[in-house]
Amino acid sequence: MTVTDELLANNEAYAAQFTGPLPLPPARQVAVLACMDARIDVYRVLGLNEGEAHVIRNAGGVVTEDEIRSLAISQRLLGTKEVILIHHTDCGMLTFTDDGFKETIRQDTGLRPAWAAEAFDDLEEDVRQSVARITASPFIPVKDSVRGFIFDVATGRLEEVAA
Amino acid sequence: MTVTDELLANNEAYAAQFTGPLPLPPARQVAVLACMDARIDVYRVLGLNEGEAHVIRNAGGVVTEDEIRSLAISQRLLGTKEVILIHHTDCGMLTFTDDGFKETIRQDTGLRPAWAAEAFDDLEEDVRQSVARITASPFIPVKDSVRGFIFDVATGRLEEVAA
Repeated sequence: MTVTDELLANNEAYAAQFTGPLPLPPARQVAVLACMDARIDVYRVLGLNEGEAHVIRNAGGVVTEDEIRSLAISQRLLGTKEVILIHHTDCGMLTFTDDGFKETIRQDTGLRPAWAAEAFDDLEEDVRQSVARITASPFIPVKDSVRGFIFDVATGRLEEVAA
Repeated sequence: MTVTDELLANNEAYAAQFTGPLPLPPARQVAVLACMDARIDVYRVLGLNEGEAHVIRNAGGVVTEDEIRSLAISQRLLGTKEVILIHHTDCGMLTFTDDGFKETIRQDTGLRPAWAAEAFDDLEEDVRQSVARITASPFIPVKDSVRGFIFDVATGRLEEVAA
């Protein structure tokens, strides 16, 4: 039995208590962009209920072309108006470099990825970088509230990063 | 007061009950890749606790270069071994076309995005497409369990899509 099978059994219990469909557009008109880190349960960290906010996540919580795609769809088609960015302490992205990671992959596979791994060594600066990539994008129409935070994995608290 | 401010107030309550740091590597060695849809609370849908699984999300739950980047980091640096893909019924990605969306953006901004919007019209086929993009990638080392599901927003239940 795989972990996937165990989680599917959990889903049976979830479905048994499910209370039915909610509307498609996020009720609170917010999009959250956070690191994929397992310790960040975005809904609980922000007190969100199902149906309230889009949640976009990736390694680092960084902004690449795909996050611009998701945010453009979120705002233009589904009406979100605020963006909350979440990086966090003890992030895996602080533990390696793009060059080292890509060289390891090259040695393993013979292929060097054409993409950036987006590792970073300064957490606050990377939050500012992510905010700046959103505010610089011509495809994101609503930029009045694009705010960046660091989640402290020791305290559960979000600290805002000054622009 | 913005919605972001309200959610930050919720975070104060979360932090007040927080029980301290967990290890960085996901305890269940699973990465979940799901749509950003507000109705999918991944942790509750799968009965996950904090610290157990990486959670990657974007518009549609599709696989582009950035999801390959996140999964490569997840497996190679943080030891995950299974991938769970989640698309869902009533998805916004079923409601538009790439051409139409990009033409709207061009009319609005003067710029046509160079990226694909990744809209789709067949949910099951897009799950298979996403699984196939992962299994075809030379950068993802562990492909023994890459399984795709559709979350039914009316019942809360996950249904596996046959390969």
